[in-house]
Amino acid sequence: MYGMPRADTREELIASTQDLLWERGYAATSPRAILDRAGAGQGSMYHHFAGKEDLAAAAFRRTADRLLDAASAVLDDPGDTGGALDAGGAGGAGGGGGAGGAVGRVQAYLLRRRDVLRGCPVGRMAGDADVLGTPALREILAGTFDRIRAATTEVLAEAVRRGELPADVDPAQLADTVLAVVQGGYVLARAAGNPAPFDRAVRGAVDLLERARTAGR
Amino acid sequence: MYGMPRADTREELIASTQDLLWERGYAATSPRAILDRAGAGQGSMYHHFAGKEDLAAAAFRRTADRLLDAASAVLDDPGDTGGALDAGGAGGAGGGGGAGGAVGRVQAYLLRRRDVLRGCPVGRMAGDADVLGTPALREILAGTFDRIRAATTEVLAEAVRRGELPADVDPAQLADTVLAVVQGGYVLARAAGNPAPFDRAVRGAVDLLERARTAGR
Repeated sequence: MYGMPRADTREELIASTQDLLWERGYAATSPRAILDRAGAGQGSMYHHFAGKEDLAAAAFRRTADRLLDAASAVLDDPGDTGGALDAGGAGGAGGGGGAGGAVGRVQAYLLRRRDVLRGCPVGRMAGDADVLGTPALREILAGTFDRIRAATTEVLAEAVRRGELPADVDPAQLADTVLAVVQGGYVLARAAGNPAPFDRAVRGAVDLLERARTAGR
Repeated sequence: MYGMPRADTREELIASTQDLLWERGYAATSPRAILDRAGAGQGSMYHHFAGKEDLAAAAFRRTADRLLDAASAVLDDPGDTGGALDAGGAGGAGGGGGAGGAVGRVQAYLLRRRDVLRGCPVGRMAGDADVLGTPALREILAGTFDRIRAATTEVLAEAVRRGELPADVDPAQLADTVLAVVQGGYVLARAAGNPAPFDRAVRGAVDLLERARTAGR
């Protein structure tokens, strides 16, 4: 570490901004709060970044990339044995599942463990008017959902091709249903101050997907 | 109106606060902004209310009541003919529906016309840390979702009793799935700057409910 203090400070600034964006959002995060959390001096933000917006974009991009990696790990699981469902659904799925396949990967995505009461670090940014009004941030926000949507659509299309789901299922439509259940589950859990609504919402969706399966009916 | 200026001012303050809470949220709404929008004088807020929190609670309660009325109008539709679905789903449901019954009422609730890009006036409050930290507001927020959840659970339980849905469907679980699809649909639409993800999400849920029906399989 010694000898590269600048790179360390840059990383500290990004990590602190990631935390603050998740906790407070963009509008409510001041440069002062970032510097305090990072333990960095006045000039360091402007040494490494053009300003708060530039730093926030770097932090948000990193958060989004981590989320996309986590989603891909479940949706693109090459094992395809339903093992991901067992791991992610340790809390117990209400509606069965475990039959694996492409549908099982989407169910595993729904049941993936999440820090529910903190909210989604990406989705929460959609509630921040300053994010929607800042093109660089808005682009990351919309682009992240586009990529999760595309990945989910692809897995659901695979489920239809394999005959796991009926041929008249619209994968793009159903992908947004899946994404919405997760995002809405966060909203309901935060409103209740309790993760239970999130858990019920995703299990209900897992159950509906299971009932939609053509095989095993 | 003449002769009751105080009551009018009180109503103006409430209506202006309702608008501002929807547009900006609680934290970002100043007493000054409320007075400006209401065209009211400095002292009028404290004449009618104990302060910003008290006024915000009155405004939020009214918004929540209107939302509950709108939800009840669809969920408790005594006609029970699927007519509500036709009215609410004029945009076209992806997955059929229209078979009415208790399931049709839940589908109509999903397809109800909404001002999608403005966001949900109740759900958006869950993203405001100051709301979660203010017991009077938090109680309205949690209580409103509790009542919509209870109403939806009741209709789904009726669907199970009538044999429209399989006997092993968990109505409480599925109710949170339905609420989450709506709330998450708002998040996705705002992130995209486009109502399309909301529309796809609710139609996908309508389709899954249709496929879960025991009758007509």
